Amino acid sequence: MSAATITVLPGDGVGPEVTDQALAVLRAVEETYGHRFTVHRRRVGLDAIAAEGTAISDSTFEVCGQSDAILFGAIGSLPPGTGRGAGPRPEEALFRLRKEFGFFANLRPVRPLEALYGASSLKPEHLKGADLLFVRELSAGLYYGRLESVPGKPSEIRRAPHGTEAVDTLLYTEEEIERVVRAAFEIALRRERKVTSVDKANVLSSSVLWREVVERVAAEHPTVAYEHMLVDACAMRLIRTPSEFDVVVTENLFGDILTDEASMLTGSIGMLPSASLGTRRTAAGTFGLYEPIHGSAPDIAGRDRANPVGAILSGAMLLRHSLGLAREAAAVEEAVEAVIGEGLRTPDLVEPGSTVVGTREMGRRITDRV
Amino acid sequence: MSAATITVLPGDGVGPEVTDQALAVLRAVEETYGHRFTVHRRRVGLDAIAAEGTAISDSTFEVCGQSDAILFGAIGSLPPGTGRGAGPRPEEALFRLRKEFGFFANLRPVRPLEALYGASSLKPEHLKGADLLFVRELSAGLYYGRLESVPGKPSEIRRAPHGTEAVDTLLYTEEEIERVVRAAFEIALRRERKVTSVDKANVLSSSVLWREVVERVAAEHPTVAYEHMLVDACAMRLIRTPSEFDVVVTENLFGDILTDEASMLTGSIGMLPSASLGTRRTAAGTFGLYEPIHGSAPDIAGRDRANPVGAILSGAMLLRHSLGLAREAAAVEEAVEAVIGEGLRTPDLVEPGSTVVGTREMGRRITDRV
Ligand SMILES: CC(C)[C@H](C(=O)O)[C@@H](O)C(=O)O
Ligand SMILES: CC(C)[C@H](C(=O)O)[C@@H](O)C(=O)O
Repeated sequence: MSAATITVLPGDGVGPEVTDQALAVLRAVEETYGHRFTVHRRRVGLDAIAAEGTAISDSTFEVCGQSDAILFGAIGSLPPGTGRGAGPRPEEALFRLRKEFGFFANLRPVRPLEALYGASSLKPEHLKGADLLFVRELSAGLYYGRLESVPGKPSEIRRAPHGTEAVDTLLYTEEEIERVVRAAFEIALRRERKVTSVDKANVLSSSVLWREVVERVAAEHPTVAYEHMLVDACAMRLIRTPSEFDVVVTENLFGDILTDEASMLTGSIGMLPSASLGTRRTAAGTFGLYEPIHGSAPDIAGRDRANPVGAILSGAMLLRHSLGLAREAAAVEEAVEAVIGEGLRTPDLVEPGSTVVGTREMGRRITDRV
Repeated sequence: MSAATITVLPGDGVGPEVTDQALAVLRAVEETYGHRFTVHRRRVGLDAIAAEGTAISDSTFEVCGQSDAILFGAIGSLPPGTGRGAGPRPEEALFRLRKEFGFFANLRPVRPLEALYGASSLKPEHLKGADLLFVRELSAGLYYGRLESVPGKPSEIRRAPHGTEAVDTLLYTEEEIERVVRAAFEIALRRERKVTSVDKANVLSSSVLWREVVERVAAEHPTVAYEHMLVDACAMRLIRTPSEFDVVVTENLFGDILTDEASMLTGSIGMLPSASLGTRRTAAGTFGLYEPIHGSAPDIAGRDRANPVGAILSGAMLLRHSLGLAREAAAVEEAVEAVIGEGLRTPDLVEPGSTVVGTREMGRRITDRV
């Protein structure tokens, strides 16, 4: 029996709905396998801005820091057309969590279930055999000018002699590259032993350094095959020959774009979980933040229409990576596959012959199976 | 009858082969419609580096500048693992041409032919009705640190107190954004009157400025519908609901990634042409550079296997945009559709029931039709 503390940050939009289902599944695991999970629930994003005036408060931060894992729902985005200086932005919560807890490796597995081939916009023959794991760098690059305003690393809109201009800085230290590349190679050892490193080395200096580091880390892992791929070519191959990939490692913004694209292999972005990990250890694993990769989808929020699978599978990753409960994680994943295999679908996945259910019913059926 | 001067830069890899076919088609247009095209052929890329020690020589530049249009083939890329300081790089030719001739708008039309639905990795129901035109900003952003080494806009690998780091600068002036956004809205007036502006405004300052400029330009075009879309969402929607797009405008690197992704709608990146335009006028149009969006594909070079359609359709864009020959451009496009409609395919597009032909035969059949 394990005892663990989990901080739940449901956020806004569909975040609370899907997180509730993920939590219900974790409660079922607790009961079935005789563990004890202490859960703290805190505000984040638009919800926190409304109630506490900030996207994530210091006290919430502290509670997170005292847990073994964070289960995150979703947060609202910038409304179209919103300009600068419009007060706190919900995304700041994510940036701060990622940065301050040192979550540099964002794992995003993409494995289309055969039962969902019909829901994907890709032809089945292109999906067959696809089983990818993205390792997205999460704590540096273009994302971090804003938070830090350090000299030499600007992200700002400014007056210049010829008029207004805007600048962002893409900066990577060798160490920032090395730790995430190393993580990717180590994960590949437990998978198909193939790493695809994605960059834009024909244009970016940061990509040239990235390649050099990959070469060095690869030399230490002679049993892992590796290749470099340009990001534009990768955007093409992901939907052309996805089964050729195993582990894909890339910098922050490329990872953001490519994983959303790759989500289409599975039929819906609502299916996909993620884990954000650093180096801090828990009793039985690594401290981490777990969230579905979908956004807050305000248009369908509160209507029992969201797909809870991404959140539930994030819970499975939490069990595996932060709590060291691999068997329980596998049980959750099998429950998801079984329920999808029975033809149950949330509205994002509807196809002829499937049974459409709501967020709660989908969650309940998976919970029952665990 | 028109008289025009065209500089042909075949480049390396498959560049010469596909350019030869595009030229043959232009020669057929010349004859059929009674025009006179003077053609200058010059080296570029690896070919120029080998023969002239630089990716593009000043004299080639001069010849280009005295023409009405440039027909470009393809150039080799950085071999995997190649580091810094390795001498002239072929891509520099493209960067210099784009920058010095002020080609800020890169038009990349993507319209899957029904006859090729079978060759795409997407299901036909997702391809139906797709007809997109990307307007990629081509002369600023992360691409231009390298060439300019101006203070405040670094692209370099450098020693820092904590070790080695690499930096690239994403900079846009308001003017650089405005001219390309304006071009997109003007093109939309002649299409379905819809503009999707793609950015990452929840992270990048340059995207926040980009949105502000879009708002302003949109206000001047009340008959054009527009929307903002985050780049990650766009990477998803391009393959989910491509028919919802009309004109897509975005910054340089996002445009690079998204257009390669979107090429998969057509079955092969070998199908896609592009036009790079600035403000300089020719006798009957705009000075421009025309190139297929595929690369130099050294693995199949010289083997009569490359798809010449991207190059041939680039020739059609050249006729339309630089020479003001819209009727002739349409004739070339119809010839391509007809030949594809007959089932002729280069090896990149093979599917059951199609007749596989080489680069030359495909070009000859299209030429014969013009
Ligand atoms: C909300 C947004 C800032 C975030 C990101 O770009 O990292 C999201 O798209 C993600 O992928 O987690
Ligand atoms: C060759 C390379 C530098 C170029 C680019 O990234 O612009 C190519 O991918 C393109 O899209 O024209």
